Amino acid sequence: MKSAVFMGTKQVELVDIERPKIEKPTDALIKIVRACVCGSDLWRYRGIFEAKSGEPTSGHEAIGIIEEVGEDVKNFKAGDFVIVPFTHGCGHCVPCLAGFENSCENADDAHGTFQAEFYRAINADGALVKIPGQPSDYTEEQLASLTTLSDVMPTGFHAAKQAGVKAGDTVVVFGDGAVGLCAVIGAKLLGAKRIIAMSRHEDRAALAREFGATDIVAERGEAAVKKLMEMTNGSGADAVLECVGMKDSVETAFQVARAGANVSRVGLPNDVDYNKYLDKMFRKNIGLVGGIASVKRWDEEILLEKVLSGEINPGRVFTAAYSLDEIQQAYVDMDERKTIKSLIKVSD
Amino acid sequence: MKSAVFMGTKQVELVDIERPKIEKPTDALIKIVRACVCGSDLWRYRGIFEAKSGEPTSGHEAIGIIEEVGEDVKNFKAGDFVIVPFTHGCGHCVPCLAGFENSCENADDAHGTFQAEFYRAINADGALVKIPGQPSDYTEEQLASLTTLSDVMPTGFHAAKQAGVKAGDTVVVFGDGAVGLCAVIGAKLLGAKRIIAMSRHEDRAALAREFGATDIVAERGEAAVKKLMEMTNGSGADAVLECVGMKDSVETAFQVARAGANVSRVGLPNDVDYNKYLDKMFRKNIGLVGGIASVKRWDEEILLEKVLSGEINPGRVFTAAYSLDEIQQAYVDMDERKTIKSLIKVSD
Repeated sequence: MKSAVFMGTKQVELVDIERPKIEKPTDALIKIVRACVCGSDLWRYRGIFEAKSGEPTSGHEAIGIIEEVGEDVKNFKAGDFVIVPFTHGCGHCVPCLAGFENSCENADDAHGTFQAEFYRAINADGALVKIPGQPSDYTEEQLASLTTLSDVMPTGFHAAKQAGVKAGDTVVVFGDGAVGLCAVIGAKLLGAKRIIAMSRHEDRAALAREFGATDIVAERGEAAVKKLMEMTNGSGADAVLECVGMKDSVETAFQVARAGANVSRVGLPNDVDYNKYLDKMFRKNIGLVGGIASVKRWDEEILLEKVLSGEINPGRVFTAAYSLDEIQQAYVDMDERKTIKSLIKVSD
Repeated sequence: MKSAVFMGTKQVELVDIERPKIEKPTDALIKIVRACVCGSDLWRYRGIFEAKSGEPTSGHEAIGIIEEVGEDVKNFKAGDFVIVPFTHGCGHCVPCLAGFENSCENADDAHGTFQAEFYRAINADGALVKIPGQPSDYTEEQLASLTTLSDVMPTGFHAAKQAGVKAGDTVVVFGDGAVGLCAVIGAKLLGAKRIIAMSRHEDRAALAREFGATDIVAERGEAAVKKLMEMTNGSGADAVLECVGMKDSVETAFQVARAGANVSRVGLPNDVDYNKYLDKMFRKNIGLVGGIASVKRWDEEILLEKVLSGEINPGRVFTAAYSLDEIQQAYVDMDERKTIKSLIKVSD
């Protein structure tokens, strides 16, 4: 089958490799319909994260059709249309039952890439999410939105949910990538009244507004703190969603959280010294929460229904689509910010 | 009037100083009925925190009778029996309205000690808590419990509340001082099913059990982690209340929190490197929450009623009582762990 393979920094190629097989009775083999490129794939692509050359390890977001299931899989059968989350919870250990499938005590490392014709999903019963009908029942836009339910939409929602966003809140969202934009949707779904998106890119700011942002702040650093404190009458925001993970955004985040607010992070933290915030956190009861998203949980509790009803359209983060043959271009364009996120059409 | 005054490390004396006066129209002058010695007073007493010699700066927990109020005070009048919280919120700024009076935007620094015959309370309307009736309506035990409502009981409850403790939870409490013991009460009030108190002192462990602890763990370090993980079937606790603030307890706390749990801290943090926990916190969605307690909020929302009804008896943490004349002994005995917490009977 055809599969994306990392060949080195800034080099992704389409290679013919062996099609994966069912290996465990809890596996499902998925025929990929739509996949995409993640911000974290780009970190690897750029050489910031180490990646083994010659291995199909990129991509972890997709929707697809089940081709075959292992003998212990009870909830799914061949032909089912499913979301393939990047998490792989078994569904029955303590963390899974508590809704934190990302910390599953029975999760193997997942192998392979979703940027390929087929993917072997582990813990099928615990991890996959059923989509009603078949791909042909949906528009291109709906398929794009369904694809975000494998990672970025639940990750953005997770930021808002873990922060404890509630009706009437003022929320600041750091990060105008796909996750930050989905966090805007998440804050809105939870009833936030004012959603301030930190963005300095016109296309992303426009999409943030479309998703529910009431204000856009382009400032950074001290200027951003000043502006945000003015906008919140000097008190700070009720919740701060940190969808970047870099030093500067975290620094600003802690300065604009009001007493009792949470800073909720879903961006992989990178080189941030949190010790300097501890005293302020203690004095002001500012919490540091968040982490890897609960994909299946949020999809099944709220997000799938909201996508199917058309209330939310997170698929709008895909501002360009590519065939699997064009995989290198999908990376190049996203790396160069020509697209917010690249959708890969693998099959119909 | 007579007032406790710090004269130097391990030296507290009773000195005649000028009685405080109403200085601002929002002040209230309080005739102290019961005061006490706080663990944080001991830090100063031991010379760990700097203290100005010759100044009455110790003590911040009391109940008393209002002697006189400033002209802007509307909610209280002379003769009212009140809890005097260690926090001094104005009651109308954003943090106060959000329930975080400790971060009040209009709080002056409070001056003077509660370990004296009189105390000038600032922000009277926003900060004080009315107790029905007069001191003579209550037993000694009830007066002791009412005294805890100025700090340790709401602080312990704050740990449990900020952690998000809910019905059926398994909670681990670090710290068997007055705050840790009150955190046990707090966890029980919120419905925790299993409350594991970390204690190696017989008297404190017995009180923890009386307050609702179902298990006592005396181990420390790696042995504590092993024991706690065994007790939680390898998954960790639903909430961890950190009422110590020292490196060892924080270290253990992060190792025994289950995925999605909060580590809630109310102990003044001391020389702890939190950066080493960040990756685990992110991978397991473990939150770091807590801070200075919301005293008036929790007293009025739940705790005063529970003390008045006799459902909780946090005053049991006072295992010795002293007259104001015996102030030095009250410090000595608490410093030497002869009493869990020292109650000071100032007037009737």
